[in-house]
Amino acid sequence: MLEARLTELGMTLPGPFPPHDPLDAVVVHGGTARTSGCLPRTVDGRLPATGILGRDVATDMGVECARLCAQNALSLLRAELGSLDAIDRALTMTVFIACSDAFVEQPTVADGASAVLQEVLGDAGRHTRSAIGVAALPRGAPVEVELTVSLKGA
Amino acid sequence: MLEARLTELGMTLPGPFPPHDPLDAVVVHGGTARTSGCLPRTVDGRLPATGILGRDVATDMGVECARLCAQNALSLLRAELGSLDAIDRALTMTVFIACSDAFVEQPTVADGASAVLQEVLGDAGRHTRSAIGVAALPRGAPVEVELTVSLKGA
Amino acid sequence: MLEARLTELGMTLPGPFPPHDPLDAVVVHGGTARTSGCLPRTVDGRLPATGILGRDVATDMGVECARLCAQNALSLLRAELGSLDAIDRALTMTVFIACSDAFVEQPTVADGASAVLQEVLGDAGRHTRSAIGVAALPRGAPVEVELTVSLKGA
Repeated sequence: MLEARLTELGMTLPGPFPPHDPLDAVVVHGGTARTSGCLPRTVDGRLPATGILGRDVATDMGVECARLCAQNALSLLRAELGSLDAIDRALTMTVFIACSDAFVEQPTVADGASAVLQEVLGDAGRHTRSAIGVAALPRGAPVEVELTVSLKGA
Repeated sequence: MLEARLTELGMTLPGPFPPHDPLDAVVVHGGTARTSGCLPRTVDGRLPATGILGRDVATDMGVECARLCAQNALSLLRAELGSLDAIDRALTMTVFIACSDAFVEQPTVADGASAVLQEVLGDAGRHTRSAIGVAALPRGAPVEVELTVSLKGA
Repeated sequence: MLEARLTELGMTLPGPFPPHDPLDAVVVHGGTARTSGCLPRTVDGRLPATGILGRDVATDMGVECARLCAQNALSLLRAELGSLDAIDRALTMTVFIACSDAFVEQPTVADGASAVLQEVLGDAGRHTRSAIGVAALPRGAPVEVELTVSLKGA
């Protein structure tokens, strides 16, 4: 059902790009599934930009990176759970944004990730969120997202 | 009962100031309630300061901002749960503090938020905490807090 | 059993160094235990280095600090639970790394903490992880780790 929704949206989830050992892409416990931190990888596994918002990376590109992070998180969940249809609803998402100390548009950037959850999951994509501006992220990624969802039948 | 406690303390919770769609102020799952990241809004919705600790914002003002963040988190929980009396105990709080790379008083600032939980909830206000110094926060806020509590009867 | 494993590894857990009131070192809820943020304290309670990666602190020392953070987290769990054998498996770990905005080796540093979980817990030490480069951490610590595990019989 949600696979059909992706087709409707014309959205292709990149990856899945699981992390290296001894990390798990997703841990399931207590009726929830939580992803490792996801970088903004494109379908060919690359980052569309590196650096920090407010200096090297424009806000529009930050939004696009946040979208890719959320798509990568959904891709990890799909691979772990067998299908996105196993998701009951989104619970919480933390969006880390590498930025200068003068940058204040963290919510605008994070909205890119939130919009993906809403587009794919509809009302079940609502979630609590923190948007945090940090010094730097792995591989120079401008954005990193971790996502927790609840599971059906749990 | 906790409402009476607030009156005793002479403490007025600001807001609630819920986030924009598709964000939820609070998500309830598995006997817990978790807030979105809360900024230090005063009763009239403004931030009492903007900028970073160790440069623009004095430690005392940081402490006051952390207090306001915790009060805003409690305000969101009260609005979602109907009453603070639905809270069994605090579980965990993350306090993000925008600061320079030379600032080391994150625990002093975060103690402002922890003190509010103790004042309002008493022993049930004990919690695990991480205090993290970050580059910048939404709207230039000096502090952002996310709070998870457990619920009675869960 | 895991105590014997520590002996085999020749690993001595520092502490426990619990945080000040009203903080809890560990909170147990819903079959999980979560630590407060742990600094890289040695057995005598000191930090082996202070400052930020990519400027004051070499990557090797960052890795060592991350190892110490994970050992301190396990030490808090052992003190709270009575024994490491109460742990079913690791669930998730967040590794905050104080660093310059040009530093990109957060995963290498965080791998120090992940390796400790794998050494001590074996397959049960696998976990989801986010590695986040931040501006500064309490007491000038280069690394801070928070750890959540699931509990046996829960």
